[in-house]
Amino acid sequence: MSVARIAVVAGDGIGPEVIGQARKVLDAVLPGVEATEYDLGAARYHRTGEVLPDSVIEELRGHDAILLGAVGDPTVPPGVLERGLLLKLRFDFDQYVNLRPSRLFPGVVSPLAGVKPGEIDMVVVREGTEGLYAGAGGGLHRGTPAEIATEESLNTRHGVERVIRDAFARAERRPRRKVTLVHKTNVLTHAGSLWARTFAAVAAEHPDVTTEYQHVDAAAMFLVTQPQRYDVIVTDNLFGDILTDIAAAVTGGIGMAASGSINPERTHPSMFEPVHGSAPDIAGKGLADPAAAVLSVSLLLDHLGHADAAHRVAEAVAAELAGRTSGSPLRTADVGDRLAAAAVG
Amino acid sequence: MSVARIAVVAGDGIGPEVIGQARKVLDAVLPGVEATEYDLGAARYHRTGEVLPDSVIEELRGHDAILLGAVGDPTVPPGVLERGLLLKLRFDFDQYVNLRPSRLFPGVVSPLAGVKPGEIDMVVVREGTEGLYAGAGGGLHRGTPAEIATEESLNTRHGVERVIRDAFARAERRPRRKVTLVHKTNVLTHAGSLWARTFAAVAAEHPDVTTEYQHVDAAAMFLVTQPQRYDVIVTDNLFGDILTDIAAAVTGGIGMAASGSINPERTHPSMFEPVHGSAPDIAGKGLADPAAAVLSVSLLLDHLGHADAAHRVAEAVAAELAGRTSGSPLRTADVGDRLAAAAVG
Ligand SMILES: CC(C)[C@H](C(=O)O)[C@@H](O)C(=O)O
Ligand SMILES: CC(C)[C@H](C(=O)O)[C@@H](O)C(=O)O
Repeated sequence: MSVARIAVVAGDGIGPEVIGQARKVLDAVLPGVEATEYDLGAARYHRTGEVLPDSVIEELRGHDAILLGAVGDPTVPPGVLERGLLLKLRFDFDQYVNLRPSRLFPGVVSPLAGVKPGEIDMVVVREGTEGLYAGAGGGLHRGTPAEIATEESLNTRHGVERVIRDAFARAERRPRRKVTLVHKTNVLTHAGSLWARTFAAVAAEHPDVTTEYQHVDAAAMFLVTQPQRYDVIVTDNLFGDILTDIAAAVTGGIGMAASGSINPERTHPSMFEPVHGSAPDIAGKGLADPAAAVLSVSLLLDHLGHADAAHRVAEAVAAELAGRTSGSPLRTADVGDRLAAAAVG
Repeated sequence: MSVARIAVVAGDGIGPEVIGQARKVLDAVLPGVEATEYDLGAARYHRTGEVLPDSVIEELRGHDAILLGAVGDPTVPPGVLERGLLLKLRFDFDQYVNLRPSRLFPGVVSPLAGVKPGEIDMVVVREGTEGLYAGAGGGLHRGTPAEIATEESLNTRHGVERVIRDAFARAERRPRRKVTLVHKTNVLTHAGSLWARTFAAVAAEHPDVTTEYQHVDAAAMFLVTQPQRYDVIVTDNLFGDILTDIAAAVTGGIGMAASGSINPERTHPSMFEPVHGSAPDIAGKGLADPAAAVLSVSLLLDHLGHADAAHRVAEAVAAELAGRTSGSPLRTADVGDRLAAAAVG
């Protein structure tokens, strides 16, 4: 019997290269994983016109988790793969916790002056199945001076409460035990009120967790001027999209960032992927850094209950980054070998 | 006859202190301004329960521009003054261009490592009368597990086109002549399509202006990693709210940032204000920096057609900031005196 059934979507560009190393590390720390590869992304789209056939969704459903490299290519119209694949999986598999940790690892240079490694260590718990991502928009009189277009943010107590609960549960497991709610309650009064009241209700059940509220514009600023202040941030789908890119930027860039689209109950498979894209310019050269893909493996392991292995993988990446001498070229496969060896311990 | 009729809303906290200096500079560079003070903000709200009586709106309407210090106080429920005063004026006076310049002045320390003064010089043209700020939200089943809340972004060709035209007109007057459209077209497909099509149409009329498009998450990241790349950014109301705070953060903080809520046709009065708040902690001590309020005077002068005076005021602020020695305490009134003297030339 396999210890875990993982669907692997290597995808486009550098996706296959970084996923190769991610699997190396996964196999090393969790022998017996059963991995099945799925050919999805720009290449398949060009070959068949298909993005994500229903039959593939049903097959993916039978897995414990999905490990994705990167999908996309300048030749695919914008939005096709994002909406047809990434967002479709988030919604179909009820991946309501979009998890984005940001740590400034030793050896990584932050664009911020005077910020020292170890000082930034936060995780953004971004809602993944509601808000402006619901696709509830429309329009009239397209192409005329009378044209209007709308986008609607849909928020339910159900959806808001479960992601806030998840954020508090994560904060309980972290040393600082602090949760920051980010919204724009002074303008988005209806959704803001729902988020704020739900946050207050859940906070009352966690008297040991410190809480604060910030408007999204202030949070965007503080992520630049005082990123050290954050522990767990919980926010809606669109705000989370923006804030996690700022958090990635101040901790060394999206090249270093991992993410999980998580269904915490494991009723549906969760998906883990590096935040970086397919980087067609360096694809096939063995130069891509697999760090973010391997950190995504760490999130995957944690989700599947292998906290110990998850920790070892994250620490292997931390050690690798700390040991890098700037300027010396990186070989994707060598990094994978080192990480696999270090993670086994 | 007065050269300009200005309504002055000094407001709360440090508002009166910084506005005192702003008026000093305004009077110095444009003698004959007729200024009328309006008592609005937290103090009036507490005294009378009123935020912005209709009669005051009508009086404000008779002015060429409004100069505002800061409104707000921890004792006023969040949103009351923001929606009842600031946003109400933006909508009632059709202030559809929300203008936020960000320059890294010599003498100002950026939180970004290795960014040199002069390298960052951008202006965000934020739409001010549409989008998620329309107040088109609602809800059902409040306080129950079945609660839902919505917020709707309303976008018209009329509203989108006029602000994009303004952005291109501003780019034409700047050396780099570049406009970046920021939206989230891959998710907000309806509004995104309207913005992208309108942008393309206006761009076609300006072949000498360089254009680019970025998703809001990428733009938030690049404002941290490569702020030098931006010249004019045009974007919607909510994205602009977030991006301008990042732009302010990387150029030394909102303490230095000025803004204009502009009705370019001058059918209605425009409003100019520093981005910083009322800072009750330092209020009344003569320690507040009037730089942002004075930069707002520069925007006001430019709007009223006094480009030369506007330039002199901005350069006076630049010289003041460049001459500051860190650590030496700042006296609000002394700074105002120096700026007024320098701006007169
Ligand atoms: C590709 C895009 C649809 C996606 C999002 O907006 O969520 C991406 O930006 C992300 O953050 O995962
Ligand atoms: C006070 C608030 C309503 C306002 C906004 O969201 O526009 C502020 O953040 C701003 O940027 O002027």
